[in-house]
Amino acid sequence: MTDLLWQKPGVRIDERIQQFCAGDDVVLDREFFAFDIQASRAHAQGLQRIGILSPDELAGIERELDALADDFAAGRFVLDARFEDGHSAIEARLVERLGDAGRRIHTGRSRNDQVLVATRLWLKDRLARVQALCREVAEVALARADAEAMLPLPGYTHLQRAVVSSCGMWWAAWAEGFIDNAVRARDTLAWVDANPLGSAAGYGVNLPLDRDHTTQALGFGRMQVAATYAQLSRGKFELAAIEALGSAVLDLRRLAWDLSLFTSAEFGFVALPAQYTTGSSIMPNKRNPDVIELMRASYAAVAAARTEIEQLLSLPSGYHRDLQFSKGAIFHAFGRGLGALELLPDLLRNLEWKPDAMRAALDASMYATDLAVDMARQGVPFRDAYVQAADPARWEQGDPEASLGARVSPGAAGDLQLDVLGARLASLSK
Amino acid sequence: MTDLLWQKPGVRIDERIQQFCAGDDVVLDREFFAFDIQASRAHAQGLQRIGILSPDELAGIERELDALADDFAAGRFVLDARFEDGHSAIEARLVERLGDAGRRIHTGRSRNDQVLVATRLWLKDRLARVQALCREVAEVALARADAEAMLPLPGYTHLQRAVVSSCGMWWAAWAEGFIDNAVRARDTLAWVDANPLGSAAGYGVNLPLDRDHTTQALGFGRMQVAATYAQLSRGKFELAAIEALGSAVLDLRRLAWDLSLFTSAEFGFVALPAQYTTGSSIMPNKRNPDVIELMRASYAAVAAARTEIEQLLSLPSGYHRDLQFSKGAIFHAFGRGLGALELLPDLLRNLEWKPDAMRAALDASMYATDLAVDMARQGVPFRDAYVQAADPARWEQGDPEASLGARVSPGAAGDLQLDVLGARLASLSK
Amino acid sequence: MTDLLWQKPGVRIDERIQQFCAGDDVVLDREFFAFDIQASRAHAQGLQRIGILSPDELAGIERELDALADDFAAGRFVLDARFEDGHSAIEARLVERLGDAGRRIHTGRSRNDQVLVATRLWLKDRLARVQALCREVAEVALARADAEAMLPLPGYTHLQRAVVSSCGMWWAAWAEGFIDNAVRARDTLAWVDANPLGSAAGYGVNLPLDRDHTTQALGFGRMQVAATYAQLSRGKFELAAIEALGSAVLDLRRLAWDLSLFTSAEFGFVALPAQYTTGSSIMPNKRNPDVIELMRASYAAVAAARTEIEQLLSLPSGYHRDLQFSKGAIFHAFGRGLGALELLPDLLRNLEWKPDAMRAALDASMYATDLAVDMARQGVPFRDAYVQAADPARWEQGDPEASLGARVSPGAAGDLQLDVLGARLASLSK
Amino acid sequence: MTDLLWQKPGVRIDERIQQFCAGDDVVLDREFFAFDIQASRAHAQGLQRIGILSPDELAGIERELDALADDFAAGRFVLDARFEDGHSAIEARLVERLGDAGRRIHTGRSRNDQVLVATRLWLKDRLARVQALCREVAEVALARADAEAMLPLPGYTHLQRAVVSSCGMWWAAWAEGFIDNAVRARDTLAWVDANPLGSAAGYGVNLPLDRDHTTQALGFGRMQVAATYAQLSRGKFELAAIEALGSAVLDLRRLAWDLSLFTSAEFGFVALPAQYTTGSSIMPNKRNPDVIELMRASYAAVAAARTEIEQLLSLPSGYHRDLQFSKGAIFHAFGRGLGALELLPDLLRNLEWKPDAMRAALDASMYATDLAVDMARQGVPFRDAYVQAADPARWEQGDPEASLGARVSPGAAGDLQLDVLGARLASLSK
Repeated sequence: MTDLLWQKPGVRIDERIQQFCAGDDVVLDREFFAFDIQASRAHAQGLQRIGILSPDELAGIERELDALADDFAAGRFVLDARFEDGHSAIEARLVERLGDAGRRIHTGRSRNDQVLVATRLWLKDRLARVQALCREVAEVALARADAEAMLPLPGYTHLQRAVVSSCGMWWAAWAEGFIDNAVRARDTLAWVDANPLGSAAGYGVNLPLDRDHTTQALGFGRMQVAATYAQLSRGKFELAAIEALGSAVLDLRRLAWDLSLFTSAEFGFVALPAQYTTGSSIMPNKRNPDVIELMRASYAAVAAARTEIEQLLSLPSGYHRDLQFSKGAIFHAFGRGLGALELLPDLLRNLEWKPDAMRAALDASMYATDLAVDMARQGVPFRDAYVQAADPARWEQGDPEASLGARVSPGAAGDLQLDVLGARLASLSK
Repeated sequence: MTDLLWQKPGVRIDERIQQFCAGDDVVLDREFFAFDIQASRAHAQGLQRIGILSPDELAGIERELDALADDFAAGRFVLDARFEDGHSAIEARLVERLGDAGRRIHTGRSRNDQVLVATRLWLKDRLARVQALCREVAEVALARADAEAMLPLPGYTHLQRAVVSSCGMWWAAWAEGFIDNAVRARDTLAWVDANPLGSAAGYGVNLPLDRDHTTQALGFGRMQVAATYAQLSRGKFELAAIEALGSAVLDLRRLAWDLSLFTSAEFGFVALPAQYTTGSSIMPNKRNPDVIELMRASYAAVAAARTEIEQLLSLPSGYHRDLQFSKGAIFHAFGRGLGALELLPDLLRNLEWKPDAMRAALDASMYATDLAVDMARQGVPFRDAYVQAADPARWEQGDPEASLGARVSPGAAGDLQLDVLGARLASLSK
Repeated sequence: MTDLLWQKPGVRIDERIQQFCAGDDVVLDREFFAFDIQASRAHAQGLQRIGILSPDELAGIERELDALADDFAAGRFVLDARFEDGHSAIEARLVERLGDAGRRIHTGRSRNDQVLVATRLWLKDRLARVQALCREVAEVALARADAEAMLPLPGYTHLQRAVVSSCGMWWAAWAEGFIDNAVRARDTLAWVDANPLGSAAGYGVNLPLDRDHTTQALGFGRMQVAATYAQLSRGKFELAAIEALGSAVLDLRRLAWDLSLFTSAEFGFVALPAQYTTGSSIMPNKRNPDVIELMRASYAAVAAARTEIEQLLSLPSGYHRDLQFSKGAIFHAFGRGLGALELLPDLLRNLEWKPDAMRAALDASMYATDLAVDMARQGVPFRDAYVQAADPARWEQGDPEASLGARVSPGAAGDLQLDVLGARLASLSK
Repeated sequence: MTDLLWQKPGVRIDERIQQFCAGDDVVLDREFFAFDIQASRAHAQGLQRIGILSPDELAGIERELDALADDFAAGRFVLDARFEDGHSAIEARLVERLGDAGRRIHTGRSRNDQVLVATRLWLKDRLARVQALCREVAEVALARADAEAMLPLPGYTHLQRAVVSSCGMWWAAWAEGFIDNAVRARDTLAWVDANPLGSAAGYGVNLPLDRDHTTQALGFGRMQVAATYAQLSRGKFELAAIEALGSAVLDLRRLAWDLSLFTSAEFGFVALPAQYTTGSSIMPNKRNPDVIELMRASYAAVAAARTEIEQLLSLPSGYHRDLQFSKGAIFHAFGRGLGALELLPDLLRNLEWKPDAMRAALDASMYATDLAVDMARQGVPFRDAYVQAADPARWEQGDPEASLGARVSPGAAGDLQLDVLGARLASLSK
């Protein structure tokens, strides 16, 4: 390993302890590295603006940071266990290439600054991706709701047949759900969009850092003002981002459950294209919907990451090394969660209904509610109508399209109000 | 128990099983009852507007609902195990008082409608309270940050003495944190502010329910359009509300940790008024800060409630009885979380610093960072300055006020920018 | 409220703060009260053995504790908000009835002692119940496995039809699972079976308390030796008990999922007696398997309780008021978890298979694995046999009983080894 | 990637979907690979015993499995994305080297068998390590309890000074705690010590697999009998192992909290050797106890892993692909948890007390309880003695050693009963 920034003369370093402390930190920092470089550039610009760096020194730093970013992207620079972490690696490179200018880059900042700002930029990037994917899912769902508005689908409560539903209603539900998820991703992105760079170790520094400049240069919506709060927001903002992601992945879990049932032989409502299935090593007959099972399972990683960070945050204010473990947690959550969401739009586009099986599952009992409400409309008090309609002798096979067409309460098959949902979705794109 | 709405002739009811199914539902429904009555009134108005109820029937229903609300508030009506749940209790009362008009109230709605809309109204009410309390906390914190801007307080990282900090920086951190928490409560309130009433059992009904009316009458910001989504949002919206609450209570946990340390004899930075402490049954000498410990512990209930709902939501779409258990969870989270937040503003107002102890804890090492940065400002590359300033021989006791005054990076003691925080807080009040 | 034990002269008590601190503690203490009385009796006996109480005083205390236990059981004594907690209530009663003898009962003990020992006795009681129920479930499952050993049932992986299975295999799985669960409850009971009484506030007292006597009198397996560890075990032992319960309830969740699917119209493999179902307020046709859904959902409470306690336990050693909240958590977990387990044996006894539907779901593809293995037995390398058997042209409808009879790998239908499971179960009863 | 075992002719494989499904599975399988090879050897032996493999074929397979194990250990064979998973890699290697004998290895087993048995062996290995480390911690703690039995240490409740305690009491607490943790690891190891190999895809096979042989050859304590239960135990046994680990890591969290406080300047009771500390990139004066903070934080990974698996297990019986994600979770929990426990014995051996600081923190109030109990021993009813001893005018500085010596309740400083703890620890070593 290169020299530790903070190493004191004469203090023995114990390899096993160092290994425990470093963990896989430097490897995890690969996720952040591009953002760390970007923030280092903004910090250097700020230092030049207050006279700590000369214009030439800044130019050198910017050139070398660009080169490092390129080398990293191209695989010519590998961030590995030679370094304590990604932050140290940047400084080491600048010192190696630029000498004293490199030795000045850390003026007025701490590694806490670096990890805070890099995490913040990374979260913004990922939340933007969540938002975009949720919008895409909603678009697919809205289009299919429109196309299949009156395609009959059995409606269940308690997994028991309840009333006639429709593909239109099913798609509209996911459309509205993912619009909500997109809104939440957007709100959360705005909420975390605050620049922590310039808070040093949580108590500021005796320099007039140009935080307005770094806020603007890094594209933040606002400055995170209080230096001590910057530290307190470590983990807190990560949790908010994970929770926004979780909102979408939780809906995905329920959607995947529907598909898991619908693709069973017993329901048989949905066929998945072959590429969404895998086989068994022992059973020659199997075609398994692994993709939808793994989509369903992805929520577990989101919940786990949340638990991990939440468990860390029973601490007094100020930085504690415990917080280091929040890094792996967000990578785990967004790795799994976004991985699943990425495949969802195409899966929904490619999903094929089996209308005959769906229609065959509509039995006479499923029109009993229509019957009771019809009687109520004709003047029978509903509670009496309910009792009469509960008599199986009165149930008879109905016409599913007619049932759906008569279902005119707003948001039901006869009045899906897809235009309202479409307008809300469109307003998100602005 | 009164007759079950859905009881079929000839079907034996098993007392033990009924007891298991009902659980403490009807008792929990007391929390919702006023909202359930309010929503029943809106639903009845809607039914009258589409001709299911006559104007006279509506008038009777409104009168009896008002009376029931009054009786409930006054304790003359007790919601207890005579009823399967609060929803049934309302219908039973209307039937008892009004006969057929009462038997019509459930036309076009399900108990799912009732619990969804009552929960939604309850969540809105609680989130508004969270928002108000967070704003109040931020106000207190801002005022004290201003008043005690330059009062020196040791700054820690890793619980080790780091640099001189100030009460101003400490208060400003909580101020900004609770402004963020208020923003999140507001955003979440807006996000859940959608009317689910009129979705029936998740598939709508064959009636042109006037959902625009109920949306407006109940003060919702929008209609939750898709009937099937209304069911899918059960639990999802509860989670979002708990998470918004959790953001505030998580900050409170860290604040309480600070106070737990600061009130120890070893730190001795803070004195709590006697009414915030309790004693021991065996140790005559004890005065324990139970209040701040229970504040700290309140996050556990929030996390538990989240876990409980999250564990329930691995389900296909459509209503499942599992979701019933989400009710107790939100009461637990908001009961504990709001209970703790309610006491916080006064606690913060009453908290007394012990300036002598705080000053005594500022040792010479805590000026080393100032020194290194000073050298950097004078041209020594920071990394070299750091090495020089790491020599204990160079540390000397400094003047804390001077250190704080020189800490001019924005958000630090020398430039707290409380006006920026104040403006953001004020914008929330509009 | 009665006087607080620890109240200091001249200190104002703030009603709102007291209310926050007390919470619903005294109500929760009802669960513990009988155990608290029992432990108070053992403590008093110990005090008499070391001369703190005279024989007469002890006799008086024992008489009054018996009377209090009777009064509490009969509802003549109500533990309510007149008292700070159940512990104070016992002392108050003894003082009221006995004067100085009552004032001596707390010699050498703390309320921490009381809550620790009462919790410990309560956990032992509940774990014994978990163990007994798990054994009962295993017995029912074993009996039905034997009776229905060769009744064909479709076997699934990924919810896709895989191979022919049998009710015998299904029941044997739950039998072995619940034997494991019973073993775990037994091991956990033994693990927590340690007497904490006599540790005072965690640091012992300057009295030679007769802890051997109280250990024996209360039926504990061993003394929890280290006084400071008694405090550290608060929450830790509760977690272990919840986890042992969780093992059983997690299996129940999966069993309930099977039944939820099997009782759907699409699978149609199982009929539930009518008393296990409920109806809908709006849909006259519904008969919903609420019981199995609530059984499935019960795991959520177990997980939530675990989270709640786990969140509390990020603390230094020594008692902290945070730990108070662990009480409600165990009541929640065991209330829901045991509630569900109590109904399980009868549910399993009453469950009716629908053999025709089960047989109808056995399609030709489900014999493909048999075919491949048969070929392998005849010398074709399995991987080649697999490829050949993957050809749908080779699949043909088979005889399920023959398939099951040939499934002779130990633990499969042809060799269920129920005797091995039965012997393990029997060894638990000793 | 090599050919997929289950690939059907003419079915297009979508790279992105395969990537999502495979995830980092093959990399994770490195943890299991040696166990998978070991179990493959036992399985092959079993196949030879029932005539599926010839003795020569078995010899070849054993030779090649040994070679593969050696190549893997030496880094000559790298398990990477060329393979779908580790299981496929073993078969591919045997086929490549041995032809038809390799094509026979999978007779009568599934990859589910492989992952179940490899996981089981891995968990046993790790639980044995947990047990050994807990015993080692207990040994260190017992030895230091004995050596420092009467060294005074302030005793706290609520982080407030309570009574005089001792290093002996502190160490004895951890000793008993880690004995309990070792017992739990041992019990859990015995509980999971059941051989799942031979259950195929959960429904057995039409071959008389010699499961007794594989059970013995792999060193299992018993056969996991029911084939369908083998699948149901996936995740369930992992949870039990994580929970046993968690018991130790939870105690470690509290121990680390103590050390975090004790190493603060304000407490100043403990000095850590320099190799247990790290520095700051910006503050030249810092020496931070990162090791103890990361030990404290390690519980978060344990809790997260538990959450992740628990979230996956809301499923019907039978294998589902969701369960794949349980693998990464156990590696995360044991990686972090064992990593922290490995460093603990040495840390405890090296920890240095600062007796002067400890003694200085013993104030007069901490003898008030002794005083009250003394009065009680002399006949004053304890509740009256308590009131008198609550008067600060009666408090006076005492002799800590005398206080400790008089603390003769079993388990307190005057009667630590370390021999009892030592005997229980010794009984674990048999």
